Amino acid sequence: MLAVGKELLIGRTLNTNALWIGKRMAAMGGMLAEVTTIDDDLGEIGDALKGCLGRAPDFLIVVGGLGPTYDDMTLRGIAKATGRRLKVDPVALDMVKRRYARRGLASVELTPARKKMATLPSGAKPVRNSLGTAPGVMLRLGGTLVFCLPGVPSEMRGIFRESVEPRIAEKTGALHREYVTLGLEGIYESALAPLIEEQLKTHPGAYIKSHPRGVREGRSRIELDVAVVDADAGRAKLAAGEIVDGISAAVREAGADVGPGRTAARKRR
Amino acid sequence: MLAVGKELLIGRTLNTNALWIGKRMAAMGGMLAEVTTIDDDLGEIGDALKGCLGRAPDFLIVVGGLGPTYDDMTLRGIAKATGRRLKVDPVALDMVKRRYARRGLASVELTPARKKMATLPSGAKPVRNSLGTAPGVMLRLGGTLVFCLPGVPSEMRGIFRESVEPRIAEKTGALHREYVTLGLEGIYESALAPLIEEQLKTHPGAYIKSHPRGVREGRSRIELDVAVVDADAGRAKLAAGEIVDGISAAVREAGADVGPGRTAARKRR
Repeated sequence: MLAVGKELLIGRTLNTNALWIGKRMAAMGGMLAEVTTIDDDLGEIGDALKGCLGRAPDFLIVVGGLGPTYDDMTLRGIAKATGRRLKVDPVALDMVKRRYARRGLASVELTPARKKMATLPSGAKPVRNSLGTAPGVMLRLGGTLVFCLPGVPSEMRGIFRESVEPRIAEKTGALHREYVTLGLEGIYESALAPLIEEQLKTHPGAYIKSHPRGVREGRSRIELDVAVVDADAGRAKLAAGEIVDGISAAVREAGADVGPGRTAARKRR
Repeated sequence: MLAVGKELLIGRTLNTNALWIGKRMAAMGGMLAEVTTIDDDLGEIGDALKGCLGRAPDFLIVVGGLGPTYDDMTLRGIAKATGRRLKVDPVALDMVKRRYARRGLASVELTPARKKMATLPSGAKPVRNSLGTAPGVMLRLGGTLVFCLPGVPSEMRGIFRESVEPRIAEKTGALHREYVTLGLEGIYESALAPLIEEQLKTHPGAYIKSHPRGVREGRSRIELDVAVVDADAGRAKLAAGEIVDGISAAVREAGADVGPGRTAARKRR
C-alpha cells in the first residue's frame, strides 16, 4: 500500500485506511506486505511507486491524491514515473458529470479542477466510486495490478469492497484464517518468549505474537495473538487449537493466568 | 520513520506512533518525510533500512522490534544490513538489570531473551528507557543519525522527548510554525481549488490543504489547514493571517461560509 498525503506526515490524520486494508487483506488470507506513506510530491510519488513495484507484489493499493486540488497529484506522479501520457478519459468524465448531476448540479461547469478528476494515465481504467466524485483507477504495471483509491475513508472502503476485493479473492482463493487472542497475566514477555519458540517448532507457519499491555496490581499483562492460515478451515482450526492449548498449559505451569483476550471476538469476523 | 511490526500490517494495531512523531516533528518546524511500515523479517528490515538511508535524511526513527521475543529482530536486521557484529553492550545490560531490580526482581535470571535486549550492533549506543525494559538505541550511519525506539507508545514517547528531540532541535534551530484550521460550508473542493492556488502564488512556501468532511443539510463541508513555517514567529503569523484573510474573503464572495475549524485549538499547541 502506498498512502499519499501530507496530512498523514504532520500528525493531522491517523492512517486508519492502512488499518482497514490490512484487516481486510488478512481476513481474506492475504497479507499487506508494506505500507509506505509519502508527501504530495511528484518526485516522491514516482520514487515510491518504483520502490513498491520493485517488490513485484500481486497488488498495489495507492490511497489518496485523486481529488481536484493542486496537491492531488497521484495520477500525474504515476504517469510521469511510468512514461505515460495523461488524458481525459470519457468514461471517467461521464462518472464525474453524473455525480454532479445527482447533486442537482447538472449544469455545473466542467472547470479544470473537475476535469482533472477524469484525467488518467494512458492504459488506466476508471473504477466506479459510488460514494464520491473522483473515480478510482485501475492500471496494470508489469505483474502488478495497481488500484488508486480516494483517501476519504468511506469512498476508499466502498471501491475496495466493490472492485478490489473480487480481484484479490481470485488470487488468494479460498484461504481460511483462524485467529485467537489470549489474555495472559503474571508472566513477563521475556519469560513467554521461549514458550512461543517451542510452539513454532511444531507449527512453523503459524503467527504467534505477544503484545505487552502494562502491569496491573503488580502483575505483567500480555495479549497473545495466534493465527493460522490454511486452505482447509478444519486444519487451520485444529492447528490454532493445538497452539493455544500448548501455550496455555506452559503459561499456567509457570504460575501465570490465561483468559480470553480483549479482542477474542475478532476471530469470528 | 521505519515502523516494524506485523501487527501494523494485519489490522491489529493503528500506527498512532507515526501520528505522534509526525506531530512533534511538525511542531518543531521539521518534517516527517516518509513512514514505511514493514513486517518482522530480517530481509525486509535490511531492505527498508537501505531504502531509507538512500534518501540521506538527517534522522531515521525506527520504531518496534526491540523486545525479548523471537520476532523482535530490528537490531539483528540493522546489524546484518550494515555488516556489523552484534554484541552484549555492558551499559545496556546494566539498564536491563536495573529495570528488573526496580520491579523487585533483583535476582532474576539473565535468560537469553533478557540478554537479547542488551545486544546491540557494534558502534551503537544504548539510550535510557525510563518507562520500560528494552533500551533505545542510537547509531550513526553515514550522515543519518538513527534512533531505534520500542513500539510501546508510552516508552517510545518517553525516549523521543528525552533523547531524540534535543538532537532534532539542534538541526531545526528555532523554527516557528503558525497553524490555523478553517471550517468551510457551502463550497465544493473543486470550486475551492483555484482559490487555494491563487494564495500559493503570493505565498509559495505555505501549506494549504483542504479536507472534505461530507455534506450536511445539502451543503458541502471542508476543513482547510493553513500552515507557515518561518525562523521569525511574527513573520509566520503575518503570512498565515494574510492567507486566511484572502481565502476567507474569496470563499464568502462565492456564497459560502467560513468559521473556525474543528481543530482550531491545535494552533496553540
